[in-house]
Amino acid sequence: MTQLQSVAWADGAVLVLDQRLLPQQEVVNRYTTVADVAESIRSMQVRGAPAIGCTAAYGMALVATHASAQQSHELLPALAAARTQLDASRPTAVNLFWATRRMYEYAVAQQHLPIAEFRVSMQREAQAIFDEDLAMCQAIGRHGEPLIPARGRVLTHCNAGGLATAGYGTALGPIYRAHETGRAVHVYVDETRPYLQGARLTAFELQRAGVPLTLITDNMAAYFMGQGLIDCIIVGADRIAANGDVANKIGTYGLAVLAHAHGIPMYVAAPTSTIDMRISDGRMIPIEERSSDEVTMIGGRRIAPEGVTAAHPAFDVTPARLINGIICERGVILPPYTTALADLMQK
Amino acid sequence: MTQLQSVAWADGAVLVLDQRLLPQQEVVNRYTTVADVAESIRSMQVRGAPAIGCTAAYGMALVATHASAQQSHELLPALAAARTQLDASRPTAVNLFWATRRMYEYAVAQQHLPIAEFRVSMQREAQAIFDEDLAMCQAIGRHGEPLIPARGRVLTHCNAGGLATAGYGTALGPIYRAHETGRAVHVYVDETRPYLQGARLTAFELQRAGVPLTLITDNMAAYFMGQGLIDCIIVGADRIAANGDVANKIGTYGLAVLAHAHGIPMYVAAPTSTIDMRISDGRMIPIEERSSDEVTMIGGRRIAPEGVTAAHPAFDVTPARLINGIICERGVILPPYTTALADLMQK
Repeated sequence: MTQLQSVAWADGAVLVLDQRLLPQQEVVNRYTTVADVAESIRSMQVRGAPAIGCTAAYGMALVATHASAQQSHELLPALAAARTQLDASRPTAVNLFWATRRMYEYAVAQQHLPIAEFRVSMQREAQAIFDEDLAMCQAIGRHGEPLIPARGRVLTHCNAGGLATAGYGTALGPIYRAHETGRAVHVYVDETRPYLQGARLTAFELQRAGVPLTLITDNMAAYFMGQGLIDCIIVGADRIAANGDVANKIGTYGLAVLAHAHGIPMYVAAPTSTIDMRISDGRMIPIEERSSDEVTMIGGRRIAPEGVTAAHPAFDVTPARLINGIICERGVILPPYTTALADLMQK
Repeated sequence: MTQLQSVAWADGAVLVLDQRLLPQQEVVNRYTTVADVAESIRSMQVRGAPAIGCTAAYGMALVATHASAQQSHELLPALAAARTQLDASRPTAVNLFWATRRMYEYAVAQQHLPIAEFRVSMQREAQAIFDEDLAMCQAIGRHGEPLIPARGRVLTHCNAGGLATAGYGTALGPIYRAHETGRAVHVYVDETRPYLQGARLTAFELQRAGVPLTLITDNMAAYFMGQGLIDCIIVGADRIAANGDVANKIGTYGLAVLAHAHGIPMYVAAPTSTIDMRISDGRMIPIEERSSDEVTMIGGRRIAPEGVTAAHPAFDVTPARLINGIICERGVILPPYTTALADLMQK
């Protein structure tokens, strides 16, 4: 696995970079069971909707590779069970369900193949999901880059970068593209409590790529907007409803309200696999409530008094009216989203 | 010193509760030099504008008590030097300048007294500042309590509680008053990065007082506003300009914009000593830029990669138009603030 690659397939195993340990340590774990892969998603060793999708696809390939069977169709129950197990690992990320469904439907379609050929084809399908994700991110970068003004100061939240995807990133894609083409760009990185994905991951990968950045606490975003130092905001998405409402990391909604109040454009960058046309609006998106301890402890150290309970909604929903554009691999989708997304998804 | 008292005078020394160590440890430091007292303010052992004012007043009393002199007026140069030293310890908190000026002017007025009597009178004046602050906080509590609706859910930021004052608090005053009078009240406590005053101090003192609370990360505030779970916001202030603009802990401005967008009232609670009529509007309030390390390190542990620089404006300015009322010891000041504050301060 090359440095900073979030997940990879190698020699019948899934390699997962443990992002919980970044930036201090770069540890890659090797898994050969779907239970371990599901746990790596649940425990947030791997995070970011596209990277989770790739990981889950490799998890399905793992079952196809190692489960014992004489004929391909005998693997379908194990694959169905693996799908259920993987889908239960994180409730909000639609890419997860998309990837496991694609893998399962592929298995159903290929069950006529001889078992050895079936196993290899399932690995290839998982790899195709990974390769397509990387290509999608690069396309998002190309489409989004022109939205960044000259010498643009871009605010981003959480990590929707190479670590959250197969590589290159969604929200960071346009930034990397601008940087690669020699344009001056500066990134304000929200640290993104409670998991500090901005401080630990986004700052890490931008620094490694040589992109100038300033780390800020989440509550400084409004200050820098008010000072006229933010030209646009680009964030990722965990799920996009048919009306353009966006579920993303907790704090995204607040940024969108603040951006709107300051007249700053707010863009969402995500592959079309993030768009869930079955969900008519954001109110129907389930919000994962995670452990209070993830707020009251930082790096194993308790920051709040014993006995104090913290709330921990992991995501929020930003209404479509606060989003100036959705950057996907096919282009930039503009409001009104209900018709624009319906058109896009029918193509 | 009783538990949770931020600062006290005892036997010719200033006792300072080291709030940096809360909630894990309750350590009280004893200082006999003004240099140590100034350092305790600079290093944020004591914080909160009113508590800083009390501490600085005791620092002046320390010089009056211990500096060698035959006659009272001979102490004035040392007191002037102490005033300069204390004023330099934190640039934003107007109570600090107010307290040192009051002590110095009192010294000038009392320089005719015999030296022993002068020393005692300076101690009494510092104690009067402390006692008046406590009484002011209680009055703020009485005036502000009716602003909290029945079964009110109040969001607060940073710590403007007993630890930030001589006791009882400014922003927490109305909450304590409501709780003491048997009313149901629930507090959403912003953890308040980077110093985590909410998680460490506000959660600590509310928990000890038996007030129900939920700790949240700063970036969750908008989510809970959007869910209809916040009835009002009450924050403290470090300085209030003549037009009602308020300098307070970084993040306050963002909360005010979010509250406005959600139709939630935003109140500022502060004694009149926080009002600086020499400052016509908030743009003239200097914003203290603190160390990047205070963002990139939490509890001595680095959270961001080596070499990454963080911004750290310690305060922001909330424009008067976003503030629904200023709760002070004389009552609740309503807009338009320019005339209301001028009237108030002339009385």
